[in-house]
Amino acid sequence: MTTQQPRQSAIAARSSTFPKLNDLTQNLVFGDIWERPQLSKRDRSLITVATLVALYRTDQLRNHLIRALNNGVTKEELVEVITHMAFYAGWPTAANAAAVAGEVFDERGI
Amino acid sequence: MTTQQPRQSAIAARSSTFPKLNDLTQNLVFGDIWERPQLSKRDRSLITVATLVALYRTDQLRNHLIRALNNGVTKEELVEVITHMAFYAGWPTAANAAAVAGEVFDERGI
Amino acid sequence: MTTQQPRQSAIAARSSTFPKLNDLTQNLVFGDIWERPQLSKRDRSLITVATLVALYRTDQLRNHLIRALNNGVTKEELVEVITHMAFYAGWPTAANAAAVAGEVFDERGI
Amino acid sequence: MTTQQPRQSAIAARSSTFPKLNDLTQNLVFGDIWERPQLSKRDRSLITVATLVALYRTDQLRNHLIRALNNGVTKEELVEVITHMAFYAGWPTAANAAAVAGEVFDERGI
Amino acid sequence: MTTQQPRQSAIAARSSTFPKLNDLTQNLVFGDIWERPQLSKRDRSLITVATLVALYRTDQLRNHLIRALNNGVTKEELVEVITHMAFYAGWPTAANAAAVAGEVFDERGI
Amino acid sequence: MTTQQPRQSAIAARSSTFPKLNDLTQNLVFGDIWERPQLSKRDRSLITVATLVALYRTDQLRNHLIRALNNGVTKEELVEVITHMAFYAGWPTAANAAAVAGEVFDERGI
Repeated sequence: MTTQQPRQSAIAARSSTFPKLNDLTQNLVFGDIWERPQLSKRDRSLITVATLVALYRTDQLRNHLIRALNNGVTKEELVEVITHMAFYAGWPTAANAAAVAGEVFDERGI
Repeated sequence: MTTQQPRQSAIAARSSTFPKLNDLTQNLVFGDIWERPQLSKRDRSLITVATLVALYRTDQLRNHLIRALNNGVTKEELVEVITHMAFYAGWPTAANAAAVAGEVFDERGI
Repeated sequence: MTTQQPRQSAIAARSSTFPKLNDLTQNLVFGDIWERPQLSKRDRSLITVATLVALYRTDQLRNHLIRALNNGVTKEELVEVITHMAFYAGWPTAANAAAVAGEVFDERGI
Repeated sequence: MTTQQPRQSAIAARSSTFPKLNDLTQNLVFGDIWERPQLSKRDRSLITVATLVALYRTDQLRNHLIRALNNGVTKEELVEVITHMAFYAGWPTAANAAAVAGEVFDERGI
Repeated sequence: MTTQQPRQSAIAARSSTFPKLNDLTQNLVFGDIWERPQLSKRDRSLITVATLVALYRTDQLRNHLIRALNNGVTKEELVEVITHMAFYAGWPTAANAAAVAGEVFDERGI
Repeated sequence: MTTQQPRQSAIAARSSTFPKLNDLTQNLVFGDIWERPQLSKRDRSLITVATLVALYRTDQLRNHLIRALNNGVTKEELVEVITHMAFYAGWPTAANAAAVAGEVFDERGI
């Protein structure tokens, strides 16, 4: 049973320097948006991961891959998201994501 | 009962000029990738729409919003995807998508 | 004395379809963030215009050029922002912005 | 025999408003960079078109497709650049470019 | 009193390999554009930092945060620029910038 | 005589996790697209390098600079591509590429 958790985000780690941004992140993005019932957390993880792959946001992708697994997206589904993204955002974004995902899967032991 | 269909894509409309690209689009992207069972068509529509919103690919977004509705994503879910994207790809991408989605919803009468 | 105002944004125009996004736009983005004293409205207009130029967000750029002028950024300064951006985001983004800004200046009669 | 020429660029059309940017465009970008012998004009057209396709710079792409043809890149080569780009920058960028290129080819009668 | 200076840029470090690019950087970008009076250095730093945050140009952002502080932008203003950018370019770009800025502030002792 | 080869790509390194993506990379992208006679390998390297510079795809750029040299693009031409890109995708993309290219040239001893 995995207990892999996202690392502390850059914003949380600098919360005293970025108090407004940290407050918005905790109370609006995670406390409100992610909790809205119009879209499941699994679906929100799918679209967030896809966006981070497409925009080549490497550091944030790592944590959201972990969140996605914790939200019930399977390893097989994440592999397929990255494969699908190769066509919609280009091979280099998929190659970058494959490297990051491989490390997340290794660390989780899946 | 809606019969709204995606318009002919730019690649299909120029298939005689772009025969290889059109062949790959029909037989690989839609004929193979979208049909793979590792991810449902509904899920593929979710991540494709999210990617097109995030990358500000206005023309392709229109058709994939129609496909998403045809693949079972609801209007309410698409609205929520765009709202979620405001935080992950920026307000201007969400504003652009809201304009396009509004027209698609109007045309479909939903 | 100019009375040029930003056009109704795409989100506001679709507020009944996108109630959460519209609420966040009115009450958080414009009602809170833009009002924070840590950065003047003039400075916020400068960085918002620069971002929209750099990201090639054509439709949103138009309205924020009008807001910038209303917030005290001069025409000469906007021209210089766009010239500066040519080096930091590439000539095509500056060319696009020059076209949009030219129309805004014409409409305003400056 | 074609006489298709690029349309006046947005910067040239607004040269009195953007004098520095116009001067840099005429005398540095086209007058110096494009004339450097380290890379042929044909090769510069190839990489410029690829960049404009990848970055989805629709308006600037149109003119540089015309320049590319005038610099000796063939229609068949441009079609292949766009097909290649589908893999390196994603299908939506190729679809957008295919639409623009189709119009340029039609206008030129090739 | 700080003496924190930008590190040698990648282009300057490779000036013998990239002589034209280095010459343009020194004599045009810094020697001409940044010195033009139409926009103050403080304002140029604001828009350059905003652009580098929005485009996720991590390595160049570090040096321009240092330049911004040297040009009179305060730490509090940079924090606010990054907070503002979260809305206009997306949370992941702000998170990345918060990490880089935190390191710059630490190194400077502010 | 150089024997510098691209490092194993992220996708190839994770081929057992990403079997479909690896198969497409080997058999379609490299096995089919790069082999098509409509564009020489040298020309494909030029446009691929330009795209990776413009999109700031640092990790993939490294390998494609090596491939470009192996496909007959000279060091002087690559330097000029990066210089040209400064104008079409912005100085930060050129600075990033200059750093990566400098390392590739050093490793190759050119």
